[in-house]
Amino acid sequence: MDVHMFSGSGFAWRVLLALEIKGVAYAEIPVQAAQAALKSPEFLALNPRGKVPVIRDGNYTLAESVAILAYLDRKHPEPPLFGRSAAEAGRIWRAILDFDLYVARDWVECIVVPIFTGQAAARAESIRAAARASHAELAKLDAAVKPHGWIAAPALSAADLVVFPIVEVLARAAGKPDAKALALDLLPLDARWPALAAWRAKLQAMPAYARTYPAYWKKLDAAA
Amino acid sequence: MDVHMFSGSGFAWRVLLALEIKGVAYAEIPVQAAQAALKSPEFLALNPRGKVPVIRDGNYTLAESVAILAYLDRKHPEPPLFGRSAAEAGRIWRAILDFDLYVARDWVECIVVPIFTGQAAARAESIRAAARASHAELAKLDAAVKPHGWIAAPALSAADLVVFPIVEVLARAAGKPDAKALALDLLPLDARWPALAAWRAKLQAMPAYARTYPAYWKKLDAAA
Repeated sequence: MDVHMFSGSGFAWRVLLALEIKGVAYAEIPVQAAQAALKSPEFLALNPRGKVPVIRDGNYTLAESVAILAYLDRKHPEPPLFGRSAAEAGRIWRAILDFDLYVARDWVECIVVPIFTGQAAARAESIRAAARASHAELAKLDAAVKPHGWIAAPALSAADLVVFPIVEVLARAAGKPDAKALALDLLPLDARWPALAAWRAKLQAMPAYARTYPAYWKKLDAAA
Repeated sequence: MDVHMFSGSGFAWRVLLALEIKGVAYAEIPVQAAQAALKSPEFLALNPRGKVPVIRDGNYTLAESVAILAYLDRKHPEPPLFGRSAAEAGRIWRAILDFDLYVARDWVECIVVPIFTGQAAARAESIRAAARASHAELAKLDAAVKPHGWIAAPALSAADLVVFPIVEVLARAAGKPDAKALALDLLPLDARWPALAAWRAKLQAMPAYARTYPAYWKKLDAAA
């Protein structure tokens, strides 16, 4: 299976984690993160929204990270990522939709992307506003993982795979020197939200994490 | 099953249609559409986001319309709303997520709600901008239903139930006298997007439509 993506995309990372957990072989097909590449005719033919990830499984093309998780789970049912009962499935979907409809885009578009693209100072006000709103959402996630150690079910589910990479991307952005200058009150993330920290540590200890940790970050980490 | 909702909510309508199609008995539990009611402690206990619909199925509470559809489909698998194969499931989820992440909220928050709440003139500029953007999305939906007569699969699926009520709400808002004064270039919707019109007609002919048509609209229709 081919995964069209750029290294460091939290949305693509979701899919890589799911593929590792399902034991499905895949190849990363790099797409440039620049809008010029994402909105090129070639890439728009794969995904008219011009976003990663997109998978190609034989002749089958599918975009939208969460739709890809649903597809993978149906094609490779074990281990199940959407619960073992209707009640669990409902809770898992609710957590996923809640995060993607009300949280993820604000974090990525209003905090992460401006910081990663050198606009921390220019967009300080809107980054600060989004960071303030993120505190309440991080507290909700912290409360959500407290009972079972996972977001929405007694075991790892698609909800964890949806939320985790975006938390990692947020934490990385918040740690950049430009971001520290903004005093976003997000760090240290693990001290502020300890149940979430334990959940992050558990996911970070999974072999799937090491195998999917963004190559681009590895390069920056090594250079730092 | 109890469905907490207000009449005329496109998001709640999705759930009612699914319940009818699955043959599950339900009761509508009215919630006032006003923010004061939706953000009351009583309602926030059901859904901390303060949004309808919310279902209560015995002791089980679930918010977020699409999560409710996933729950209902798992609990009552026939007829299947999420496809008969992994490929179909992927396409259906992709259509649903695409619509809810990039389309539905703009239509509802930037066009429908301002018109229904008497702010058409005050918010003319942003309504017009959202209406212009909606033309491309309506054209995409028109193209999507052309091959099979349904949004994402060869048969009725959850994608149709997700999109249809929001199209109906948009069409109703566009037909209000206040909206007509804005010349949004949405009407006649059926003449501009004929494949979508045939799809709408097919859904409107279903018994589930007549049984779930908003009581509030019926009252206004009768008074007009």
